[in-house]
Amino acid sequence: MNNFQAQAGVFYGVGVGPGDPLLITLKAHQLILSADVICYLANESGTSQARDIAQYSIKSRDESALEIAIPMPMSTNRTAANGAYDLGAQQIVEQIKQNKSVVFLCEGDPLFFGSFSYLLERLSDDHRCLVVPGISSVNASASALQQPLTLLQESFVVMSGRHTDAQLEQALNTHDSVVIMKAGRARPRILAMLDKTGRIQDANYLAYIGSAEEEIIIDVSQLANKPGPYFSLFVVLRQERNS
Amino acid sequence: MNNFQAQAGVFYGVGVGPGDPLLITLKAHQLILSADVICYLANESGTSQARDIAQYSIKSRDESALEIAIPMPMSTNRTAANGAYDLGAQQIVEQIKQNKSVVFLCEGDPLFFGSFSYLLERLSDDHRCLVVPGISSVNASASALQQPLTLLQESFVVMSGRHTDAQLEQALNTHDSVVIMKAGRARPRILAMLDKTGRIQDANYLAYIGSAEEEIIIDVSQLANKPGPYFSLFVVLRQERNS
Repeated sequence: MNNFQAQAGVFYGVGVGPGDPLLITLKAHQLILSADVICYLANESGTSQARDIAQYSIKSRDESALEIAIPMPMSTNRTAANGAYDLGAQQIVEQIKQNKSVVFLCEGDPLFFGSFSYLLERLSDDHRCLVVPGISSVNASASALQQPLTLLQESFVVMSGRHTDAQLEQALNTHDSVVIMKAGRARPRILAMLDKTGRIQDANYLAYIGSAEEEIIIDVSQLANKPGPYFSLFVVLRQERNS
Repeated sequence: MNNFQAQAGVFYGVGVGPGDPLLITLKAHQLILSADVICYLANESGTSQARDIAQYSIKSRDESALEIAIPMPMSTNRTAANGAYDLGAQQIVEQIKQNKSVVFLCEGDPLFFGSFSYLLERLSDDHRCLVVPGISSVNASASALQQPLTLLQESFVVMSGRHTDAQLEQALNTHDSVVIMKAGRARPRILAMLDKTGRIQDANYLAYIGSAEEEIIIDVSQLANKPGPYFSLFVVLRQERNS
């Protein structure tokens, strides 16, 4: 097999996929093995979802190899998050300036609803950056459900729990296939909009796809009407489809 | 590393990603190595894009191991295509009934604008099927452009060259980020709609991402106003974005 080695002085944003440690690409795997430094976001207790997903690749690294955990406050306060990204970017730049290769691990795909873009915008003007795509939870959901996301003339839109009720309602009324990412805190609002638009029957709920905590609910009327985990999403597909 | 072996009598739909042979997942790689039979669509001259992408994984297989190429006519005639899928499904069933493991290779992701769903609908009622997601060209495009597909409140829609002018126009007028897949034959219509909606400056054009024939054009006004390759797409992102 071709070998793809992390290059000196380059910052890599690398997608590690949705949760299953084997849904990482050969390129991501080889970069993790060969990078001088790996880094990732971590919560206040030091846990990193991205690092957990990449466990099989990481355990083949030299145990003494450098890892940088960037602590990210759980708050929705943008100022706190921006401070954390500033600090993380500064630590990464210190390594790049010493001509180290630095691999930043991202859940799913780096540039799809991910936080990697906040690091990229801080680094891309002055440093060599490369991005390696990852499997997004959108594609992993379709595989788990064994349902096509789109067929022929169907329209397909991706929203997030950050969108307003009116935006969600309009998308559900307009498009055949609607994926709603980051459905955790917004779950009660999303359930209300699914009900209002008559699309409860079309909806599927998935959380932590491909990991030990995976949850797939086909009848979303059984879902508790309260906030759920951050890594959850709704996949809304027409029941009757013209293939 | 964990090993994931293809199981006897199971039909696997496996995404091989957008073109770079290293953008295949560890799971797909291990399934290709361990499957009794691999199969894929091939054009009239016998070439298979999916097989080409999976070359690094395939060359580690036993050379005498069975491969089934399903010939797919280039025509847009649905009857001809349906006949080809019927024939392919029949060949796959013959293998499954002999308790062989069968891996069908799909460009990009199996259930995202792919032809795999036509095989899945023929096989899923009577046979055990599993789907392994792949990197879609949507995510690979964002990585190649080093641009986030969506930020915060932006809306994101995926269309295809199969949509009508009116549908394309409406999507370009309504959504911040618009990806238009399968842009080959429809390129002149797409360029006209980009012009009509004032989004020529927002558009990027990509073809054969990650392969030797990769083409990325940031100024799409330079694109010839004529049909292009099937594996091409437009990624339309706002020039001014609020991060």
